[in-house]
Amino acid sequence: MDIQEYMQQVGKNAKASAKVLARAPTATKNRVLLSTAEILEQSQSELLAANAKDLEEGQQIGLDSAMLDRLALNPDRISLMCEGLRQMATLPDPIGQITDLAYRPSGIQVGRMRVPLGVIGIIYESRPNVTADAAGLCLKSGNASILRGGSESLRSNQAIAICIQKGLAMANLPTTAVQIVETTDRAAVGELLRMSQYVDVLIPRGGKSLVERVSKEAKMPVIKHLHGICHLYIDESANLEKAIRVALNAKTQRYGACNTLETLLIAEIIAPKILPDLARMYLEKGVELRGCPMTRALLTSLPIVDATPEDWDTEYLAPILSIRLVADLDAAMEHISTHGSAHTDAICTEDWNKARRFLTEVDSSSVMVNASTRFSDGFEYGLGAEIGISTDKFHARGPVGLEGLTSQKFVVLGDGHIRT
Amino acid sequence: MDIQEYMQQVGKNAKASAKVLARAPTATKNRVLLSTAEILEQSQSELLAANAKDLEEGQQIGLDSAMLDRLALNPDRISLMCEGLRQMATLPDPIGQITDLAYRPSGIQVGRMRVPLGVIGIIYESRPNVTADAAGLCLKSGNASILRGGSESLRSNQAIAICIQKGLAMANLPTTAVQIVETTDRAAVGELLRMSQYVDVLIPRGGKSLVERVSKEAKMPVIKHLHGICHLYIDESANLEKAIRVALNAKTQRYGACNTLETLLIAEIIAPKILPDLARMYLEKGVELRGCPMTRALLTSLPIVDATPEDWDTEYLAPILSIRLVADLDAAMEHISTHGSAHTDAICTEDWNKARRFLTEVDSSSVMVNASTRFSDGFEYGLGAEIGISTDKFHARGPVGLEGLTSQKFVVLGDGHIRT
Repeated sequence: MDIQEYMQQVGKNAKASAKVLARAPTATKNRVLLSTAEILEQSQSELLAANAKDLEEGQQIGLDSAMLDRLALNPDRISLMCEGLRQMATLPDPIGQITDLAYRPSGIQVGRMRVPLGVIGIIYESRPNVTADAAGLCLKSGNASILRGGSESLRSNQAIAICIQKGLAMANLPTTAVQIVETTDRAAVGELLRMSQYVDVLIPRGGKSLVERVSKEAKMPVIKHLHGICHLYIDESANLEKAIRVALNAKTQRYGACNTLETLLIAEIIAPKILPDLARMYLEKGVELRGCPMTRALLTSLPIVDATPEDWDTEYLAPILSIRLVADLDAAMEHISTHGSAHTDAICTEDWNKARRFLTEVDSSSVMVNASTRFSDGFEYGLGAEIGISTDKFHARGPVGLEGLTSQKFVVLGDGHIRT
Repeated sequence: MDIQEYMQQVGKNAKASAKVLARAPTATKNRVLLSTAEILEQSQSELLAANAKDLEEGQQIGLDSAMLDRLALNPDRISLMCEGLRQMATLPDPIGQITDLAYRPSGIQVGRMRVPLGVIGIIYESRPNVTADAAGLCLKSGNASILRGGSESLRSNQAIAICIQKGLAMANLPTTAVQIVETTDRAAVGELLRMSQYVDVLIPRGGKSLVERVSKEAKMPVIKHLHGICHLYIDESANLEKAIRVALNAKTQRYGACNTLETLLIAEIIAPKILPDLARMYLEKGVELRGCPMTRALLTSLPIVDATPEDWDTEYLAPILSIRLVADLDAAMEHISTHGSAHTDAICTEDWNKARRFLTEVDSSSVMVNASTRFSDGFEYGLGAEIGISTDKFHARGPVGLEGLTSQKFVVLGDGHIRT
């Protein structure tokens, strides 16, 4: 197989079907989502068989148990995938929405119409459910998609793609509106990164090294999510009961998520009142605590690890928390600005002015007052779905839903108007 | 001068002042705009003296008269520059605007707050008024700016920058919030394109070769405007009187603008009724006409140049118009999709469905019905000002005003809410 030729063909197919998809009626797009869900359910045995082969090969090549778990499909996970597609069908169609249509002094009416971006490339790792999820979001937002999953999940992804393509065919849409890259040759990724004539935006979903490679080499715009070093600052004005609840939830509700708390900052003056209890609760839940010297001095009776400078810059994605006492709000914001990743940062405070300053001055994609960082998520925010979280500022910031996969053009309505 | 060291310092200064600017109150930013306008007026003689030196050197190095004209300042142009700054002061401040704040089922309130992009680099050619204009827009939108004008206008730009920096100092803002690159060494541009750690977005304003170079080499996002090959399609359902008015205005109101008509498409069936009159009017205004074979067959008594295939892909920026007869709306949209530059395209029609199809299906940054393409402009659209026109889809599309220089972060307000 000539990889370059193959990928060029994939790109051409995508570009051509993007034109059709851009003007597909809402009802047609919803029909594809709903029939795909049905076909996926009917194809459960095929999906599980394909997945079993992927899992078998995964074991042979020595994937660890976490990777094998992410790779595995089962009836529950297939149901969730279908549930996701059905939910997308209920979301409002962003395409064609006209906003701000208003008369100008010249007599013309000017407004903005939401349009698809065109072709979206998604590069992701083992979870096969991303195939249905990403394809559905791209489809609903009127975009063609090229999906490049992990090579360990190729057979599962192929089986899912067949269902999606059946759904497209049933609605008379081109089956190339959703294509998966049907080769495990890594050269295909390099090719994808260079095909800016066909691919309008790339979304890498996976580990930091994947995201860094894509950002560096891609010749088209990238919606990227590098990492989440999330902070909670407990101010001296905090309500202690709320602060403990939020701090525990932000760290322990799920350890491996990008919106999980990694560093807890506490105002020095309030630390003796809150930290001993809070630390014990974390330790009881099995969280390893790494503290600054002041933290350790305060908690001499507890097993607190000495935090190194690297700790402040580390996304643990694990039951580990770094803790630092700071003088005040300014010191906390300084720490966040220096060590944060502009993902999600929160403050616990009952002080109006401090809340207002934190919201305004902390330059992260999500800033929160008295709420757990774990809320930073497309579903929780009401976007209906999420293709990823952007820690960039350009185009999209924070959780990216359907709207992040669109653009707006200007529409001008006149009656023979000319410029003078 | 070590160019790399110098540019790195400019970048560091910009990044540091961007933090201050991001939280500068609206009143402070407006004060800078108003005092800068006043200082520019008071400094008229210094500005003209600096400009005279630029002009003298421009003549010595053999700049053509069009370039010298663009380079020239005079009291009128200085007034216009000041007028522009005063108008920016009246625009609503986009920064801090919170939209869509609403309760979610979990009890948290989620909204979006508009924030600056950070540091904006602008690379432009001879017109010195861009210095005040661009600096003003970046300032009002809370961004620091690094301005790299043409080397032929360095002294004029320096004189303008001194006025802006005085305005900043009077409001106690860092004078490095607006910096011009004070060297004509071309290596400085290469450095600027690589400084992605300091520069958040680049905006090239100038000819196609400049824009292409910047797009190709920049390591940060670029808001780019490549070229404008704008079309008007006169459908058989058009009102002839309106169509003639719009067609004439779109081409002849100003020849050198990017939103000027370059190709006129006419439905074959209506061409005999409209084209002979329209062609005569164009010729009377001194517009050279280049026609397809059918156009020429229809206008045998008029001097119509034979259009070559290149004509359909050419932005003339001159009193030249290419004319092509097409079978119908579909053929017109096919021509636009093949030869257009996704800038601005218009239709003249009285047919509801054709208007609706054109607005939906033509994939350009501005699509118009019964209005002159010359309306495609930030002021005409009510954006208040314009830093450029984007023919991209990512982040910004069409005329880019203050909003295009901003991003949105999520704000989450809670009362001790946790995720379950």
